[in-house]
Amino acid sequence: MKKPLVGIIMGSDSDLPVMKEAAKMCEYFGIEYEVSVVSAHRTPQRLFKYSKEADKRGIRVIIAGAGGAAHLPGMVASITPLPVIGVPVKTSSLEGMDSLLSIVQMPGGVPVATVAINNAKNAGILAAQILGVKDKEIRKKIKDYKKEMKEEVEKKAEKLEEIEYAEYLKLMGK
Amino acid sequence: MKKPLVGIIMGSDSDLPVMKEAAKMCEYFGIEYEVSVVSAHRTPQRLFKYSKEADKRGIRVIIAGAGGAAHLPGMVASITPLPVIGVPVKTSSLEGMDSLLSIVQMPGGVPVATVAINNAKNAGILAAQILGVKDKEIRKKIKDYKKEMKEEVEKKAEKLEEIEYAEYLKLMGK
Amino acid sequence: MKKPLVGIIMGSDSDLPVMKEAAKMCEYFGIEYEVSVVSAHRTPQRLFKYSKEADKRGIRVIIAGAGGAAHLPGMVASITPLPVIGVPVKTSSLEGMDSLLSIVQMPGGVPVATVAINNAKNAGILAAQILGVKDKEIRKKIKDYKKEMKEEVEKKAEKLEEIEYAEYLKLMGK
Amino acid sequence: MKKPLVGIIMGSDSDLPVMKEAAKMCEYFGIEYEVSVVSAHRTPQRLFKYSKEADKRGIRVIIAGAGGAAHLPGMVASITPLPVIGVPVKTSSLEGMDSLLSIVQMPGGVPVATVAINNAKNAGILAAQILGVKDKEIRKKIKDYKKEMKEEVEKKAEKLEEIEYAEYLKLMGK
Amino acid sequence: MKKPLVGIIMGSDSDLPVMKEAAKMCEYFGIEYEVSVVSAHRTPQRLFKYSKEADKRGIRVIIAGAGGAAHLPGMVASITPLPVIGVPVKTSSLEGMDSLLSIVQMPGGVPVATVAINNAKNAGILAAQILGVKDKEIRKKIKDYKKEMKEEVEKKAEKLEEIEYAEYLKLMGK
Amino acid sequence: MKKPLVGIIMGSDSDLPVMKEAAKMCEYFGIEYEVSVVSAHRTPQRLFKYSKEADKRGIRVIIAGAGGAAHLPGMVASITPLPVIGVPVKTSSLEGMDSLLSIVQMPGGVPVATVAINNAKNAGILAAQILGVKDKEIRKKIKDYKKEMKEEVEKKAEKLEEIEYAEYLKLMGK
Amino acid sequence: MKKPLVGIIMGSDSDLPVMKEAAKMCEYFGIEYEVSVVSAHRTPQRLFKYSKEADKRGIRVIIAGAGGAAHLPGMVASITPLPVIGVPVKTSSLEGMDSLLSIVQMPGGVPVATVAINNAKNAGILAAQILGVKDKEIRKKIKDYKKEMKEEVEKKAEKLEEIEYAEYLKLMGK
Amino acid sequence: MKKPLVGIIMGSDSDLPVMKEAAKMCEYFGIEYEVSVVSAHRTPQRLFKYSKEADKRGIRVIIAGAGGAAHLPGMVASITPLPVIGVPVKTSSLEGMDSLLSIVQMPGGVPVATVAINNAKNAGILAAQILGVKDKEIRKKIKDYKKEMKEEVEKKAEKLEEIEYAEYLKLMGK
Repeated sequence: MKKPLVGIIMGSDSDLPVMKEAAKMCEYFGIEYEVSVVSAHRTPQRLFKYSKEADKRGIRVIIAGAGGAAHLPGMVASITPLPVIGVPVKTSSLEGMDSLLSIVQMPGGVPVATVAINNAKNAGILAAQILGVKDKEIRKKIKDYKKEMKEEVEKKAEKLEEIEYAEYLKLMGK
Repeated sequence: MKKPLVGIIMGSDSDLPVMKEAAKMCEYFGIEYEVSVVSAHRTPQRLFKYSKEADKRGIRVIIAGAGGAAHLPGMVASITPLPVIGVPVKTSSLEGMDSLLSIVQMPGGVPVATVAINNAKNAGILAAQILGVKDKEIRKKIKDYKKEMKEEVEKKAEKLEEIEYAEYLKLMGK
Repeated sequence: MKKPLVGIIMGSDSDLPVMKEAAKMCEYFGIEYEVSVVSAHRTPQRLFKYSKEADKRGIRVIIAGAGGAAHLPGMVASITPLPVIGVPVKTSSLEGMDSLLSIVQMPGGVPVATVAINNAKNAGILAAQILGVKDKEIRKKIKDYKKEMKEEVEKKAEKLEEIEYAEYLKLMGK
Repeated sequence: MKKPLVGIIMGSDSDLPVMKEAAKMCEYFGIEYEVSVVSAHRTPQRLFKYSKEADKRGIRVIIAGAGGAAHLPGMVASITPLPVIGVPVKTSSLEGMDSLLSIVQMPGGVPVATVAINNAKNAGILAAQILGVKDKEIRKKIKDYKKEMKEEVEKKAEKLEEIEYAEYLKLMGK
Repeated sequence: MKKPLVGIIMGSDSDLPVMKEAAKMCEYFGIEYEVSVVSAHRTPQRLFKYSKEADKRGIRVIIAGAGGAAHLPGMVASITPLPVIGVPVKTSSLEGMDSLLSIVQMPGGVPVATVAINNAKNAGILAAQILGVKDKEIRKKIKDYKKEMKEEVEKKAEKLEEIEYAEYLKLMGK
Repeated sequence: MKKPLVGIIMGSDSDLPVMKEAAKMCEYFGIEYEVSVVSAHRTPQRLFKYSKEADKRGIRVIIAGAGGAAHLPGMVASITPLPVIGVPVKTSSLEGMDSLLSIVQMPGGVPVATVAINNAKNAGILAAQILGVKDKEIRKKIKDYKKEMKEEVEKKAEKLEEIEYAEYLKLMGK
Repeated sequence: MKKPLVGIIMGSDSDLPVMKEAAKMCEYFGIEYEVSVVSAHRTPQRLFKYSKEADKRGIRVIIAGAGGAAHLPGMVASITPLPVIGVPVKTSSLEGMDSLLSIVQMPGGVPVATVAINNAKNAGILAAQILGVKDKEIRKKIKDYKKEMKEEVEKKAEKLEEIEYAEYLKLMGK
Repeated sequence: MKKPLVGIIMGSDSDLPVMKEAAKMCEYFGIEYEVSVVSAHRTPQRLFKYSKEADKRGIRVIIAGAGGAAHLPGMVASITPLPVIGVPVKTSSLEGMDSLLSIVQMPGGVPVATVAINNAKNAGILAAQILGVKDKEIRKKIKDYKKEMKEEVEKKAEKLEEIEYAEYLKLMGK
């Protein structure tokens, strides 16, 4: 088994339904990954250990998701020299604005590459793009992925241009 | 020299002009304190060490101020069993809303006692109130402080009721 | 029966499903508490009386929850010398932002130790931490609680690292 | 000297430069008023006394201005049966949003008639409109005031339509 | 039949489920009222006519509710010399923040007495308080209403102090 | 078949249930339109092509709907000389505030005529108003539409003034 | 002299320094315009008259700027069948968010074509684009304007690529 | 001369005083970079060309800064397979919230690695971290940079612990 290049961590296992999309994209791009729970607030030592060792274990990008006063991505970034991608998880209040600001507004010196609220899928793609910097094959796959997205939209557009919008809505079940 | 009971820390020495008010209130209430810089993002080990040892060193309350993606108060609270008071420092964007949400929206299990944006003075008073739980003398001083505040307002009110508001404004230099 | 050390009050009995979590944490830490309804806006005299007498009755920390233009925590804090913990209760508009700002943005001189929106659980823990200042046993229990939280996360992390995330999600029933 | 019908109070004398506009409008409409400082947080007893006695002293409308966690208007309204007008005073953070929400989002049963941020002038006019309910002369004056405003705008409009906008700007000194 | 003193209008009949609470409070205080639909945007002439004539028809207070870019209360206030109470109705986006700001942030010269989002009940009470300025009986009823609210809370408080909170929650059906 | 004058495009076919209202209004005003999917982010070339050719194909107004970081309307506007109407589509976070700001806050030189969140209906009407600039008949239809809206409100108002509000609510099924 | 096609109005002459940019763009595109003050709140009759007659007087597009509870654009749009462009003017509180929401969040049936906060320049360009629908020459000018903007950026880009950024900053005087 | 690995672009040369910090960090880490102006809205073709060719020209990371309805980073990301870092530039309204949301809230499929408002310095560091994925030497430099930051804070902390805070403030010139 190959060693994981992407570490996907989250503050709580309740974030897994959101964060699993990052894992799926890694699979899509054929990138080895690992998934775990690391809570900044409930397991600070574990956070330290994980962040300290990731680099040496061969991890090249860390994806960290958290909600509310979301400190996990920033704290990991403060310890590891690796690029850290932050996923603001939407919680029950404030529509995820607290998660977003807690992750993106990092001070000078310690960046977190923040993606959209709940958008772990994009975190996975960004990880692939970052690994693509040293891996031509992944870069090729990203180009293919973009092409696929394009074609999927074009097919829908063609359909919608062909038939009445009302009919299209019916086909969508709406 | 007595050992400090209150630890006042901040993410950067640029926060000192705001955070010094906490120190002033400790002085006012005759409470020993210490002041230092502990950056969650630039000195994570120091953060750990400080939080780990504070309790043993005799600290009873920690006041932590930070701005932007303000992780210091929450991370200290994740490590120490002591009560942690968070001061959201207003930075150059978003009017301090990012600092506030990053500090107050802590997940279940790890509270931070958050005060108003830039209000380190109140952090100092709250620390005194907390120490007052075991110290009748401090409790007495807090009552006196409240009385003083009251009398100051009453004196102003009396003055304003006595003279025209326009004259009062002139005395204020406005 | 021992006298309560923590007073848990709320603006309306409709806040009880949120505020009961504070009571539960007091029970968890073996701290005597009382629960009541004190409305700043509908029973101002009662608010005054409660705040005035709490100290003398032996209460050492007050937890006050309220929503919307949430004045209860701040008004109690204006009268009592005791530390007051404010819980912003989420109401039907504005996602609890109004409750949060009404509670946390107190003026210099009268702090309210504010916790996250709807997070009465953290209010209970903070009360314990405050009482822990004078009670080594409670401090010990807080340390134990932190350890328990840690172990619970670690167990989940171990499980998630062991099995596929898809399987884990199934076990979660998602 | 006639007894005041409008009570203008504010949380701090630092609010006077804003709140004086309410007094000016009372003068404009020939309505007796009084001005004082009543701090919800620093003089809660005074707040109670003022609110309790206003009605008996002949006050018919109370204008209360405050900033941040602005509890004064709502607390006065909880005690007095009189209509209370709230002026959200803009403070140094959050652009006055905290003051606004703390004043306007009152729970069912206790309204505060809220005006725009820092708009004490409108509070004065609203007080006149309220007193106009029982005083035909004031109602007449309000109509005249509206007419004056109208004519002032019309005069400016006429001027601007007559000359080039660039010239108009020069006359404005811009 | 007595002529109505309070005019309750709304931008759309879809606001009626919210605005009916204003009518209910008028009934409670024994105040004659009328209810109608006046849309600032779809019936501007009607808006003008209504605002122009309300005063002459004997209306003394106007309550206007609207949502989104809520112009009804402000436009009525621009025409009538009567006090206008604005109710920001919560619509499907932005949690009612748009309705609130569109109503409360009126320019100098034209106040709207704004109440909380969706809180038509408070608009009804405020109308009563305004009419109470010239009507001792209504003032008396408002005092009684406050007393009733107080007693209702006290009864609940007594109950909650008597039994366990868990039992109380069961009685609430939660 | 006549050539379309209005191009209705959207970032994803999932926006169709919202955007169909624009099409409906075009039908209402008897204006030829076309509907398609053009994704700024997944089909940038298509976006360029569409924007580049619309003018030559006889399109006179473009309606573009998108959500989140909604770049479609602004990017179309950067390429075409035609007026572009932007519809901020509400997505699952932030209540559509992100969509709104991404569309409306265009820099000097490249306007997007922005309508309310999810209000594709108004986009359709605005398109008609724009085409009405050169087409008297459409202008006439807009006047008629306004009259219809007016009459519909008046009928409801009449009904509500005639019967009790409670009865009206029952007729509404509430 | 040719009759104006664009009517530029604003709620107060204090908005002229912002709104003059709309006039400048009309001049740039060689479009006749008029400038005046029409206050929704201080001159409601004038608002009605202006909106009622604009169409007949030959105006084809109305640009309306206002701040705070900005009702002018929406009220004009409720009366005229012409397209109305709204400019949210930034006032002293809330960074223009109140102006923006009051203008853009119009209900179904009455659109306002909203541009960015304080961006009257874009309102002028949008007016030109709208008139371009029936005027090939204006359409040509808009294309030329876009070309000019493009060339200006390209020239700067070329410069910046040629010299060091530090030197470029010096040339900018920074 | 070595070919640039990092492309730093911005929507306008007025963003250069902010964006130059990204260039400085590239210099610090010894990474070749280029700086240019690419406006999404004024030079869309240039945007396309730049994004299309960057990869082939050897660029490995793109840093794009823009303000307001900031479409540059997202549009570049829609075309290039390279990782794109977005810098939300603070403009004159809304405190940079519009820039942030326009950049970070990208739809699934097209991530932008967003950093804090105006924090181009962190964009430069993040670019280095990304390149560090394939370059051990850069990774080493990042570790050194972190160490430097740490030592700088520690030195300040030591100083502040040594002397009185008042003296420290004097040394800071405050």
